[in-house]
Amino acid sequence: MTATEPIRLTPDVLLGLLAGNNGRYEKRLAELEGLYRDDAAFRSALESDDGEPVYWVESSTPDTEPGALTVGISVLKPGRVGDEFAMTRGHIHAQHSAAELYYGLSGRGVMLMETVDGRTSAIEITPGVAVHVPGHWIHRSVNVGDEPFTTLFCYPSDAGQDYGIIGDAGGMAKLVIADGEGWALRDNPDHRAYQGDTA
Amino acid sequence: MTATEPIRLTPDVLLGLLAGNNGRYEKRLAELEGLYRDDAAFRSALESDDGEPVYWVESSTPDTEPGALTVGISVLKPGRVGDEFAMTRGHIHAQHSAAELYYGLSGRGVMLMETVDGRTSAIEITPGVAVHVPGHWIHRSVNVGDEPFTTLFCYPSDAGQDYGIIGDAGGMAKLVIADGEGWALRDNPDHRAYQGDTA
Repeated sequence: MTATEPIRLTPDVLLGLLAGNNGRYEKRLAELEGLYRDDAAFRSALESDDGEPVYWVESSTPDTEPGALTVGISVLKPGRVGDEFAMTRGHIHAQHSAAELYYGLSGRGVMLMETVDGRTSAIEITPGVAVHVPGHWIHRSVNVGDEPFTTLFCYPSDAGQDYGIIGDAGGMAKLVIADGEGWALRDNPDHRAYQGDTA
Repeated sequence: MTATEPIRLTPDVLLGLLAGNNGRYEKRLAELEGLYRDDAAFRSALESDDGEPVYWVESSTPDTEPGALTVGISVLKPGRVGDEFAMTRGHIHAQHSAAELYYGLSGRGVMLMETVDGRTSAIEITPGVAVHVPGHWIHRSVNVGDEPFTTLFCYPSDAGQDYGIIGDAGGMAKLVIADGEGWALRDNPDHRAYQGDTA
């Protein structure tokens, strides 16, 4: 085994880029059909949409050996669809016990986390605040501010992502909604129990 | 398996503390016998030493399942012993293929990295700069500035640390030494080839 070269990674928070990355992933509003509850508001948002990505990830995965890490930045534009704040699709790791670190670089967001057996945690992230997401938590980033919400993240490269678990359950159990100048959690009436064991 | 609770971690860079941690590790100068080449300078430093830690780590390890991560901050005080800058002992992960992320929070440092088969990499870290250390790299933090050098780090909880590999080789192959207002690498004449395979 030849060790891959160490990598200098420099997030550019203003541009939402990660110099040194070897991977990019992006999502446009048109790809997020069904993510938000208010369908009329979603249609309206689509009509005025500029077609640019609403969130993206730039990441570094130098190798895939055991113990390898994927490091990157996640950038989520601000916005609202109905009373829900802009959010990512969310996922649980395919290897359920895999953890993830998020560290706030810009903006104001919430890490919304739920377990298959019905627990909820929501932790606000601002620059300089980290959230350590242990294994077994479904997690989603929500932008509750009016600037891009940018985080540095790190997870085991073999963790994998299961995006389907949320859609199959009618969405996450909680919604992050606008509440005065801030945010609040509200029960999602469409949510059904998550399927699958906690392995 | 009951998922452990997500954790809000907030580094306090001025105090060198990590709120939310569940582990702390520290090293005093008196414990670093043999780390620096200039023994007379080390003795002299010990005589005027205040006995406080010269570097420490505060970390979060919520569980030890496969895919679990240890997240923390490393704080390394500035200083010199002879012409060598203040440094950590350095290690390779016991699971050699395990990677690590370092992200600069304060000060100015160098991540000095070497492979068992003789490659070297040295990357300067300042606030906002990350270094992705892939598996198979022996690595050490060096403070080349005049303030505490603080990094946020993340590695797989089952990586383990082998601290002996450097001492057994007479030190790392390169020294990080003062050079005008900056730093430079110099060959360590005491270094012998690292023992062990690259597994």
